[in-house]
Amino acid sequence: MGYGEIDQLAINTIRTLAVDATFKANSGHPGAPMGMAPVAHILFNKFMTFNPKNPDYINRDRFVLSNGHGCMLQYALLHLFGYDLPLDQLKHFRQVDSITPGHPESHDTPGVEVTTGPLGQGFSNAVGLAVAQAKSAAEFNKPGFNLFTNYTYMFFGDGCAMEGIASEAASTAGHLQLGNLIAVYDDNHISIDGDTKCAFTEDVLKRFEAYGWHTQWVKEGDTDLDGIEAALKKAREVTDKPSVIKLTTTIGFGSKLQGTGGVHGNPLKEDDCKQVKQKFGFDPEKTFVVPQQVYDAYHQTAAKGAAAEQEWNQLFDKYGQQHKAEHADLKRRLSGLLPEGWQKALPTYKPTDKAVASRKLSESVLEAIHSVVPELISGSADLTGSNNTRWKDAVDFQPPNLGIGDYSGRYMRYGVREHAMAGMMNGISAYGTLIPAGGTFLNFVSYAAGSVRLSSLSHQRVIYIATHDSIGLGEDGPTHQPIETLAHFRALPNMMVWRPADGNETSAAYYVALTSKSTPSIFALTRQNLPQLEGSTIEHAIKGGYVALEDKDADLTLVSTGSEVSLCLESVKVLKDNHNIKTRVVSLPCVEVFDSQSKDYRLSVIPDGIPTMSVEVMSTLGWEKYSHEQFGLNRFGASGPYKDVYKKFEFTPEGIAKRGLATVNFYKDVKPLRSPVNRAFTNLI
Amino acid sequence: MGYGEIDQLAINTIRTLAVDATFKANSGHPGAPMGMAPVAHILFNKFMTFNPKNPDYINRDRFVLSNGHGCMLQYALLHLFGYDLPLDQLKHFRQVDSITPGHPESHDTPGVEVTTGPLGQGFSNAVGLAVAQAKSAAEFNKPGFNLFTNYTYMFFGDGCAMEGIASEAASTAGHLQLGNLIAVYDDNHISIDGDTKCAFTEDVLKRFEAYGWHTQWVKEGDTDLDGIEAALKKAREVTDKPSVIKLTTTIGFGSKLQGTGGVHGNPLKEDDCKQVKQKFGFDPEKTFVVPQQVYDAYHQTAAKGAAAEQEWNQLFDKYGQQHKAEHADLKRRLSGLLPEGWQKALPTYKPTDKAVASRKLSESVLEAIHSVVPELISGSADLTGSNNTRWKDAVDFQPPNLGIGDYSGRYMRYGVREHAMAGMMNGISAYGTLIPAGGTFLNFVSYAAGSVRLSSLSHQRVIYIATHDSIGLGEDGPTHQPIETLAHFRALPNMMVWRPADGNETSAAYYVALTSKSTPSIFALTRQNLPQLEGSTIEHAIKGGYVALEDKDADLTLVSTGSEVSLCLESVKVLKDNHNIKTRVVSLPCVEVFDSQSKDYRLSVIPDGIPTMSVEVMSTLGWEKYSHEQFGLNRFGASGPYKDVYKKFEFTPEGIAKRGLATVNFYKDVKPLRSPVNRAFTNLI
Ligand SMILES: [Ca+2]
Ligand SMILES: [Ca+2]
Repeated sequence: MGYGEIDQLAINTIRTLAVDATFKANSGHPGAPMGMAPVAHILFNKFMTFNPKNPDYINRDRFVLSNGHGCMLQYALLHLFGYDLPLDQLKHFRQVDSITPGHPESHDTPGVEVTTGPLGQGFSNAVGLAVAQAKSAAEFNKPGFNLFTNYTYMFFGDGCAMEGIASEAASTAGHLQLGNLIAVYDDNHISIDGDTKCAFTEDVLKRFEAYGWHTQWVKEGDTDLDGIEAALKKAREVTDKPSVIKLTTTIGFGSKLQGTGGVHGNPLKEDDCKQVKQKFGFDPEKTFVVPQQVYDAYHQTAAKGAAAEQEWNQLFDKYGQQHKAEHADLKRRLSGLLPEGWQKALPTYKPTDKAVASRKLSESVLEAIHSVVPELISGSADLTGSNNTRWKDAVDFQPPNLGIGDYSGRYMRYGVREHAMAGMMNGISAYGTLIPAGGTFLNFVSYAAGSVRLSSLSHQRVIYIATHDSIGLGEDGPTHQPIETLAHFRALPNMMVWRPADGNETSAAYYVALTSKSTPSIFALTRQNLPQLEGSTIEHAIKGGYVALEDKDADLTLVSTGSEVSLCLESVKVLKDNHNIKTRVVSLPCVEVFDSQSKDYRLSVIPDGIPTMSVEVMSTLGWEKYSHEQFGLNRFGASGPYKDVYKKFEFTPEGIAKRGLATVNFYKDVKPLRSPVNRAFTNLI
Repeated sequence: MGYGEIDQLAINTIRTLAVDATFKANSGHPGAPMGMAPVAHILFNKFMTFNPKNPDYINRDRFVLSNGHGCMLQYALLHLFGYDLPLDQLKHFRQVDSITPGHPESHDTPGVEVTTGPLGQGFSNAVGLAVAQAKSAAEFNKPGFNLFTNYTYMFFGDGCAMEGIASEAASTAGHLQLGNLIAVYDDNHISIDGDTKCAFTEDVLKRFEAYGWHTQWVKEGDTDLDGIEAALKKAREVTDKPSVIKLTTTIGFGSKLQGTGGVHGNPLKEDDCKQVKQKFGFDPEKTFVVPQQVYDAYHQTAAKGAAAEQEWNQLFDKYGQQHKAEHADLKRRLSGLLPEGWQKALPTYKPTDKAVASRKLSESVLEAIHSVVPELISGSADLTGSNNTRWKDAVDFQPPNLGIGDYSGRYMRYGVREHAMAGMMNGISAYGTLIPAGGTFLNFVSYAAGSVRLSSLSHQRVIYIATHDSIGLGEDGPTHQPIETLAHFRALPNMMVWRPADGNETSAAYYVALTSKSTPSIFALTRQNLPQLEGSTIEHAIKGGYVALEDKDADLTLVSTGSEVSLCLESVKVLKDNHNIKTRVVSLPCVEVFDSQSKDYRLSVIPDGIPTMSVEVMSTLGWEKYSHEQFGLNRFGASGPYKDVYKKFEFTPEGIAKRGLATVNFYKDVKPLRSPVNRAFTNLI
């Protein structure tokens, strides 16, 4: 309490920086930063603990700007507090090769926790960060050692409030009673279409109450600094519920167009820029002005944060004396490295082992590795028994008072909320102490596409356990049978899509996914049983593709994935017996990983001189990159027992052989017949 | 009121049919049908008007089973009422080539209004159906002629209630005050993971109240038939709000496992099947038994519906005498055909016309055709000014009491709710009198992927106006720049993805989209200006691909779409001047439509003998189908003015020429060099 001139000056500095940066870029959103500068000033200076010199300090308070279009607010704060974001970067807001892109990107900009902008994402990330905090606290805190005490603060606007993912995440946070999560809802009555009256007239606070949140309303968000502080204080005191503060603000506060859509997504006009500065006591002719007193005040806050980290480091050292194993474990986790030798726990299989569905093989991996990879936290969007995501003795992550788990639990019950699950997993991963894996049907990973994309863009080590991966799921029918899904996610940069053919390939998928610190993975897993293949080993499969059956005199290469690899192997005999065609078979469980191998290796797998045909029981789109001809399913599937469905679409040894024969004949006259691995040039990546 | 033995018999017939069908299929969900049989019996017999002999009767009450996994409930009802769904189909539940697939599919099964099963979809479809009803009533009803009076009834379960899309749709329905929408929430405390306590503890009714819904709770949903009827009656009386009835039921009512997860997704065991039948007074040894009294009672309801339709037809005839134009218009709309000659209104362009962004060209089409295509209803997910989806004199579809539109309005303010927008558009299209178009950024069509997929699967004529289609959006940066999106939707069966290069191609996209009665479309449109091309005409572009610049002696074909076509045309001179390479250019605005042309035509566009290189500023995945080499962007974009971003990634005439040269050199030695149009075999479609 007791706000004075310096506070107002700081608030207005943030506002004018946002005005100047968007004006200079001739692009961007000044309105939200101008409206939310007061709450940001109070939150960062009076409540948050962080060290700009070490943005990775693990017990820092997390801040998430879910309305990421207002990122000039965040960039201004980061600059003022002394993060490695010089004023020059604000001057290059939204320019190529700056670290101040149009929306905050965590891998680009120090101090940005998660990548936001796509609306609702930050909201779900914040819930994930809060889960990770509660889990880390339950796991590592000991009497006298409160290592994990941080809060997660999140701002969101009307846009986020309307997005389904935020609704899902809010319901989940309420259920989980995440008292460490505090959200500020920027109630400014404006979205891009103008007054929210045109589409959004619900009672937001009542809705959050229904979810089990603690709710407050600060009606004068532009000016009532004491009220804002009191509400934040109260929110911190409520420890058994997440808190939301509805903060009624004026978008573009200070602009001639304040309170209108005119300041939402467009820079202020030049005369308005001057007018704002004049109004706030700034020189209207100068740009990017930061009064030294503001730097001083903000650096003082930063210094407190640095001191807090130092204190924490000392505490952590002492912790190491009394809790040696936990200390070592946490230290290792913070390095991003897995425990030495963990991979020895991965199951391996012989061809004589029985046929098992890859969803069950995945379960076996989880069962085998969960005790040696303690940072792994699994879960499912209400398909636990179908996704096989839960090891037997798993404890659910639940508020203890429900009596069905506790906050040390490593199994998340996400509910039927695929999109929030994915967004939360991004947040859990971003926290720094956990690796999340979450299950749903492959077809419903599409529900989560918005967050899956951000797993990739923001380099999160997240695993999507996507079962029921094809028409092989059978009876549930076309509504549940993926056709386009693998093409979708193979086209997504920095995403590994794995479709293992057997047990060793499933173990390989886990190996690569868990050791890839900045790349997420999707595991497409079968409902139906798959035999253990002759040529498959973990060592082979971690290359993304390998020769499952070699024949030096082959007339044809079949490349395939998952459940179709064994079908291809069966077709070899048919091709030989019926058509006298010698065939080699390639398993390509992960094209992204295969692409990263040397050209020599790739050519040894998909060689020159003979045609290659791909076999995968879904869209052929993209398979032209690895094959001359493609056998796939470019239509929706059918409801029925899976063997009948496979037969209907001719995914049988005979159906493959028929097309293999056509392929061989078709390419007989082409010289030289190059492997599709050969390209005229390489695309930028 | 006054329920007796026959009612109980009918209810138990539905239950035992569900038990028998799932048992025979050894697959499916008996629990929901057994729990919801009472409310379904009452709703269909006491409240709903429909004619099984004409499932298309336009003023029928609509029924949507959002928890589509309970489809045996719906199939049993359709059979009992006399829809063209013989008992034999129930016996072939979930079998290949039956019309009783694992989840209800509207294009397969008479009486199924929309395709459901993916959770939350039916909820949003129902909101769309209710919008279409309100709009049709406002447009066509006249004093003495209440042509459109139907209600939309929808069942949903816990799964739907947790899905974000349902939250979005519920908020929208509350805002729109859709009094014609009545939902029944099957509160059975069970989802796949078991007790909903593990993930879903919010106060659902309070949440719906917050959205502005009228709420009721019937606590004894298994037995309190009078209470169910009273609640439905009350819900119909509330005409200024959508209604939800929380109906507490016992999942799998009658089974030994009733009330547990054991009856959710698995058939009953054989002894339990017998036990249920015994309990309900059925012969435990017989299967698929329908007592004649039940048929009789249900056929009586059906007869009432047929009579209602006859009455309606007479009313409609009379309407034709007094409201000739409206009568003709409605009749035409119901045929699915557009007005004679409407296409003359489509704008055409000459190469000398100025450069315009394709999002603006799309706006010009809407401006030009909206008065001749009255069934077109546009909208946006809160990006109206960016998507350019609103014609100037459009009236918003709004509840009249807000003072910002009325129910005759043709412009939807969907809010920031992309997924619900798409699901609602599916419902609006399914109603039968309207063609919905809705806008968002292309990148955020991914948020709606679940519904977009169902637009395709269920053959809805829906248009997605997807602007800001590439890195060409510039400053908003990688979070908003699509890379994988077109590959995703090109891999989706029965979806036309259009990326027009100029004005004539934009008009062509609208022409094909609007005249394709059972295929949805996505229009990928630029933020930046595009020149009007020399070779482009509507006639050319409606073929999906055509030669934009011919050269009979060409060494190279460039195939491209959208904003890159004019770049390719610019590169022709560079290729000639710097490398002495003669180049022809192909514009391929819609590969799906191009694929449907004759092989001769496709070979005339992408010929044998010379190499083809594709140019599109996003994932190359899939372009191998139309080209030998691909120039694209297989990484995330960058934030900056768009010309800088294009330059960064070498999407310039020089960058194209460099790769064109490499392509020509690379293929010099290959004989014969076949067009990628040539395939060894054709995939099943
Ligand atoms: Ca707002
Ligand atoms: Ca349920």
